[in-house]
Amino acid sequence: MTVTDEYLSNNADYAAEFSGPLPLPPSRNVAVLACMDARLDVYRILGLKDGEAHVIRNAGGVVTDDEIRSLAISQRLLGTKEIILIHHTDCGMLTFSDDDFKRGIQDEIGIKPTWSAEAFPDLEEDVRQSLRRIENNPFVTKTESLRGFVFDVATGKLNEVTAS
Amino acid sequence: MTVTDEYLSNNADYAAEFSGPLPLPPSRNVAVLACMDARLDVYRILGLKDGEAHVIRNAGGVVTDDEIRSLAISQRLLGTKEIILIHHTDCGMLTFSDDDFKRGIQDEIGIKPTWSAEAFPDLEEDVRQSLRRIENNPFVTKTESLRGFVFDVATGKLNEVTAS
Repeated sequence: MTVTDEYLSNNADYAAEFSGPLPLPPSRNVAVLACMDARLDVYRILGLKDGEAHVIRNAGGVVTDDEIRSLAISQRLLGTKEIILIHHTDCGMLTFSDDDFKRGIQDEIGIKPTWSAEAFPDLEEDVRQSLRRIENNPFVTKTESLRGFVFDVATGKLNEVTAS
Repeated sequence: MTVTDEYLSNNADYAAEFSGPLPLPPSRNVAVLACMDARLDVYRILGLKDGEAHVIRNAGGVVTDDEIRSLAISQRLLGTKEIILIHHTDCGMLTFSDDDFKRGIQDEIGIKPTWSAEAFPDLEEDVRQSLRRIENNPFVTKTESLRGFVFDVATGKLNEVTAS
């Protein structure tokens, strides 16, 4: 029995108590972009209720073309206007370099990825990098509020990163 | 006052009850890749506890280079071995075409994105597409279980999509 099977059993309990469906567009017009880290239960951290906000997540909570794609769809088709960025302390992205990560893959399989791994040495600097990538991208045009935070995995608190 | 401010107020309540920190590597060795849809509270849908699984999310729950980047980091650096893909009924990605979406952007700002919007006309077909993109990618090499599901936003239930 895999962990996936256990989670499917949990889902049966969830469905038994479920009351839906809710409308498709996020009711609070918010998009959250956060790290994939297992300790970030974004709905609890922000007190999000079902149907309120889009939640986009990846390794690091960084901004690449795919997050721009998601944000553009979120804003243009589903009406979100606020963006919340969340990095966090004790992040795996602080523990390696792009060069070493890609060398490890090349040594294993003989092919080096063409993409960047997006590792970073400083949390606040990378939140600012993400803020700037969004501010300077031409395809994310409906933003009325854009703010970045570092989630502290020891305290549960979001600490804001100022823009510069 | 923005919605972001309201959510920060919620976070103060969360931090007041918080007991951490947990270790960095996902304790159940699972990575979930799901749509960003506001109705998908992935932790509740699967019964995930804090620290158990990476959660990657984007518009559609599709697989592009950035999801491969996240999955490669998840597996190679943090030891995940199972992957759970989640699309859902009533998805926004069913409601438009890449051509129309990109034309809308070009008409507004004069620049057409070089990336694909990844809209799709059929949910199960796109889950299979995502399964195949992972199976055929050389950089995601540690997978021991890979399964895809459609979450029903009316019932709360995950329905598995068979591979072919």
